[in-house]
Amino acid sequence: MSFNTFGRVFRFTTWGESHGPAIGAVVDGCPPGLALSEADIQPFLDKRKPGTSKFTTQRREADEVRILSGVFEGRTTGTPISLLIENTDQRSKDYSDVARAYRPGHADYAYDAKYGFRDYRGGGRSSARETASRVAAGAVARAVIPDVDIFAWVSAIGGDAIDYADFDAAQIDQNPFFCPDPAAAVRWEAMVDAARKDGSSLGAVVECVASGAPAGWGAPLYAKLDSELAAAMMSINAVKGVEIGDGFGAAALRGEENADAMRPGENGPTFMANHAGGIAGGISTGQPIRLRVAFKPTSSILIPVDTVTREGEASQIITKGRHDPCVGIRGVPVVEAMMALVLADQYLLHRAQCGE
Amino acid sequence: MSFNTFGRVFRFTTWGESHGPAIGAVVDGCPPGLALSEADIQPFLDKRKPGTSKFTTQRREADEVRILSGVFEGRTTGTPISLLIENTDQRSKDYSDVARAYRPGHADYAYDAKYGFRDYRGGGRSSARETASRVAAGAVARAVIPDVDIFAWVSAIGGDAIDYADFDAAQIDQNPFFCPDPAAAVRWEAMVDAARKDGSSLGAVVECVASGAPAGWGAPLYAKLDSELAAAMMSINAVKGVEIGDGFGAAALRGEENADAMRPGENGPTFMANHAGGIAGGISTGQPIRLRVAFKPTSSILIPVDTVTREGEASQIITKGRHDPCVGIRGVPVVEAMMALVLADQYLLHRAQCGE
Amino acid sequence: MSFNTFGRVFRFTTWGESHGPAIGAVVDGCPPGLALSEADIQPFLDKRKPGTSKFTTQRREADEVRILSGVFEGRTTGTPISLLIENTDQRSKDYSDVARAYRPGHADYAYDAKYGFRDYRGGGRSSARETASRVAAGAVARAVIPDVDIFAWVSAIGGDAIDYADFDAAQIDQNPFFCPDPAAAVRWEAMVDAARKDGSSLGAVVECVASGAPAGWGAPLYAKLDSELAAAMMSINAVKGVEIGDGFGAAALRGEENADAMRPGENGPTFMANHAGGIAGGISTGQPIRLRVAFKPTSSILIPVDTVTREGEASQIITKGRHDPCVGIRGVPVVEAMMALVLADQYLLHRAQCGE
Amino acid sequence: MSFNTFGRVFRFTTWGESHGPAIGAVVDGCPPGLALSEADIQPFLDKRKPGTSKFTTQRREADEVRILSGVFEGRTTGTPISLLIENTDQRSKDYSDVARAYRPGHADYAYDAKYGFRDYRGGGRSSARETASRVAAGAVARAVIPDVDIFAWVSAIGGDAIDYADFDAAQIDQNPFFCPDPAAAVRWEAMVDAARKDGSSLGAVVECVASGAPAGWGAPLYAKLDSELAAAMMSINAVKGVEIGDGFGAAALRGEENADAMRPGENGPTFMANHAGGIAGGISTGQPIRLRVAFKPTSSILIPVDTVTREGEASQIITKGRHDPCVGIRGVPVVEAMMALVLADQYLLHRAQCGE
Repeated sequence: MSFNTFGRVFRFTTWGESHGPAIGAVVDGCPPGLALSEADIQPFLDKRKPGTSKFTTQRREADEVRILSGVFEGRTTGTPISLLIENTDQRSKDYSDVARAYRPGHADYAYDAKYGFRDYRGGGRSSARETASRVAAGAVARAVIPDVDIFAWVSAIGGDAIDYADFDAAQIDQNPFFCPDPAAAVRWEAMVDAARKDGSSLGAVVECVASGAPAGWGAPLYAKLDSELAAAMMSINAVKGVEIGDGFGAAALRGEENADAMRPGENGPTFMANHAGGIAGGISTGQPIRLRVAFKPTSSILIPVDTVTREGEASQIITKGRHDPCVGIRGVPVVEAMMALVLADQYLLHRAQCGE
Repeated sequence: MSFNTFGRVFRFTTWGESHGPAIGAVVDGCPPGLALSEADIQPFLDKRKPGTSKFTTQRREADEVRILSGVFEGRTTGTPISLLIENTDQRSKDYSDVARAYRPGHADYAYDAKYGFRDYRGGGRSSARETASRVAAGAVARAVIPDVDIFAWVSAIGGDAIDYADFDAAQIDQNPFFCPDPAAAVRWEAMVDAARKDGSSLGAVVECVASGAPAGWGAPLYAKLDSELAAAMMSINAVKGVEIGDGFGAAALRGEENADAMRPGENGPTFMANHAGGIAGGISTGQPIRLRVAFKPTSSILIPVDTVTREGEASQIITKGRHDPCVGIRGVPVVEAMMALVLADQYLLHRAQCGE
Repeated sequence: MSFNTFGRVFRFTTWGESHGPAIGAVVDGCPPGLALSEADIQPFLDKRKPGTSKFTTQRREADEVRILSGVFEGRTTGTPISLLIENTDQRSKDYSDVARAYRPGHADYAYDAKYGFRDYRGGGRSSARETASRVAAGAVARAVIPDVDIFAWVSAIGGDAIDYADFDAAQIDQNPFFCPDPAAAVRWEAMVDAARKDGSSLGAVVECVASGAPAGWGAPLYAKLDSELAAAMMSINAVKGVEIGDGFGAAALRGEENADAMRPGENGPTFMANHAGGIAGGISTGQPIRLRVAFKPTSSILIPVDTVTREGEASQIITKGRHDPCVGIRGVPVVEAMMALVLADQYLLHRAQCGE
Repeated sequence: MSFNTFGRVFRFTTWGESHGPAIGAVVDGCPPGLALSEADIQPFLDKRKPGTSKFTTQRREADEVRILSGVFEGRTTGTPISLLIENTDQRSKDYSDVARAYRPGHADYAYDAKYGFRDYRGGGRSSARETASRVAAGAVARAVIPDVDIFAWVSAIGGDAIDYADFDAAQIDQNPFFCPDPAAAVRWEAMVDAARKDGSSLGAVVECVASGAPAGWGAPLYAKLDSELAAAMMSINAVKGVEIGDGFGAAALRGEENADAMRPGENGPTFMANHAGGIAGGISTGQPIRLRVAFKPTSSILIPVDTVTREGEASQIITKGRHDPCVGIRGVPVVEAMMALVLADQYLLHRAQCGE
């Protein structure tokens, strides 16, 4: 089965392949009356856009979004919002090898095993190019929850982590790595450049915080806020792990260390810590919602790897073409978008059952 | 919103509170003609059952399951299967403090913030007692995919990990910790006992492998196999992190280290490694499906923690009653059940679109 | 596939067979804080209960409902509400013929063709006994929309219609036919009794009105209010047709005859007519919501009909046992329940997107 | 809420307004490997296309469909199929009155009541123009179930029905009314022309038959085949009633008249009649699936009708512009499309649970 819709009440459906004429998303269930234009969406696409530095793929896409429906006189009408992004820099000739043999780490073999047939150009549907559609949809989601502030950053590349003592949110947009620690950004520049020159690639960790969501969002037991976030993040290309709050670190703690003690506050309790990442019992607590996402190294590398052909013969493959040496970097706006999309959906779900 | 159904085609809905008269699940979409009786389900419940050692809660529940529908003359009919487990050892008097003040780390405050009202007895709906319903449903799921072998174990408690050089699957059922490493089991006995005597608790890591699933299961892009597994695992009480394959470890690798090279095999490619955990592009590759789940330490501890009352006054709380000193241990059969439930659903979804 | 959940936000799942130990429903997504006890549900079940007159089946079921979860101290908690009704008067020996040959008009052959196997006792899952679960769930739905007044009646039996000039809502509960026209009730008594004595059965038309729903409920384009109502009604056993407002009558009108003209009113427009049945563009207009439902005659008759056996041999079958001579009569509380269930769901869906 | 996705496994999502730049559909869950190109879809759009005779709206739309994704080298890949149709003949100036006052019978007031705001141009989202997207999606559905033959016709206009003694399927495409009875077609020509000249409109009844579906499709109890068909048909603009098989006629029959007796046949039973319309217990019986759909007269008429303005003042409205004098006529390909879409979904759902 393919299943390309995400969300319960605020839903989006994406479509499109890396080398088709266009990609897009349909956002359904958006509240009416929200101010929305292409100008509200484009900055997020620009943040994700390829070709902006030598540390990302050299494919050049303008990634200009058009709103084809659901907005009238600058406001959402409550009907489905169709978003379209044309593909302009496909170079399908780059991918002839991929038609013949499976790229290890890519979805090539799995798609063939599933569908018996695939659009191999640039990874087709399994390409990370699809995430542009998510980023566009995510911008709509942000309009639904304007009081929630969402931002993400890269916290480690190739195992080299930032120092949280040097965390400076203002730095995130000042370097090509979405890195909040200037010293780490300098180190990463050398690391990523070296990997790129080696024809290799590096993994990364992305962290995201959403502040301003009130206590009470989440739909236990099977659409819990953390469960939906885990699904959302794990659906992103190259993601292999998700942690909420302290995540695996919590597994090494004792109960009293992990307890987020409470004291009386002006608007509900004040929490003395946030090991839980702002979620308890699958419901937001009003604290910042914190999560970490592990991106594997880009599977497209210039170093030959053993593989098999579609006919089952032994072969080797080098993935030429234009690729990100560290796909986690451009994952930052995608993680933010998925956070926004989950929270918008949970907000509306909560309002359905419990009112405003 | 509450949302208590999981799955797309093979679906289950759970209901029931810790201290209500009963809990249960309705399994819908099960293929007809499968042999099924209470005897096929009970062993999995017995594995999860409380009160079996001093390392789990002393609440005594027989956890006897009854099949109320969907099975006729020992075979499934394709209609909904209603499973019922009576609660027999509720002691609601133990929970009077909980009505008054919020237990940090528990869902108490979040449920009140969401619903304005809650069944506070034993955690009510947010209690891990609900996982018995999942385990029962999971036994039905196993009958749907009999060729898939699923087993889980505890790989770390309180930060103390097993040595994979000493991994022995036959050991898992030979100790109260589902521990495959006998030496670790000895260490954990002392650790968990000490934590219990201290009135404290410990976190744990559970790992799970499913072997025998063919290549091709998974529903990209928003019901990818790994995405569904992440949601399923994160919906379990006390879970804070999920990794597929190498997980966060992959984020520290280079592309050539992380590549699962392929060679020709008898039935499709043979993979030289399984960093990916048996999933590529959200679709199974035919390799074993591997994941890791982080459980936080049980939030119910006898050590006083600062908190607030429902009226917003400062207070302290000690969680008396009968609790697991390490809730991750009894998470093992729950993780297995969720793995089975996701795979059964994905198998049927795949069959829908692509045939057998 | 079997698919036993109805609703988008306010959802219910039913389970159980005619001759199993029990039947039931799980209601999910119910707002918290609503007063609810068995006493709020039982009257609706009593209205549907069999064996209350010679015009309904002689099966005697107390149809006593138990609430197993989701209610605490007399109020809903927002968690799933499990409702259980025990079967007490199964007489499975009555159904031995049904195991052998297919009853025309029943689901026997279709279930075998689908599942290859079925619980033939009393129709198993396809029995109208399941509708007791809907009626119980419907009572919960009514609590969600207390300002909406829903009532249904029988408007024709065996082609003999009531005279709307003699419509008296107070009469509906005064005769065993839910008939608002006393003269028609007298005629029907003779007709139904004659059909019963002949071993035959009669069809019926049920009408339902819901007043008090505000303008704005409905989820176009694929969960329109009328679309959801049509699905809900057509899912009831023996239903073969659904009309909203004038229904097929509108197909014979001219545009100016069918227009529901508007004049200024105190709270929004006043409509001069209600051909549309209170729904325009799939959204409620604030007028009463009106629909009609066609029930075929009960398929269980004592008159022999040609059929085939499971082995494909020619045969004849007489459906002995205890049956309703006019199944539409007991359809009245079921139609009301489905109306309530759809409206409760649409109310919450509307609130999700558009607020209160 | 707006909810613009239909289907459970084979799903489609539509978007777009009457006077926006384009409309479209995303079809998800389509099996891979099916031959599909624009040439397979265009004929169905041409059948529905406006402006082909004086009996339909004079709006001129080429309705040329483009496939933007999901098809590679002429075959479906199993990924979402994005279909786009540009709007080319919007004349928004025609609709200025509609911005001011509500057109009775239209969705104008209901949309304003729901969303507080609407795209009033040509009905915006509530326009029947959206049905072009369904027709395009329906053509994809037909490719999923190539052995099922689906066709529909108009059986009555303005209360004047065809004579089934003169039914000739070959005639359906030979007149502008999809009329299988040549004599009726002559009468309707005069009737519709007269209504058009009067500035009035007429209702119609459309019937549809699907042959070749095997026994066993349907997902009881809440995605029964007839329930899904009823929802699908009632979601079409202007539809007010749906009958399966004999529909309301069955409500006037006795049990023995309504029984579809069976005799042994070569491939399963042979049915002696088809009162049930090919569906029993919500599951197909292998007989032709028959249904009837009531279309109200077009609400856009040139005869003034009392109404109110957005500000709540009394007014009158004449709906100028280009409209169908009998919207049911162009409903024929839409009814066929919805039949195909439901059957394709039910086929895949059946395959999920029960295999091939």
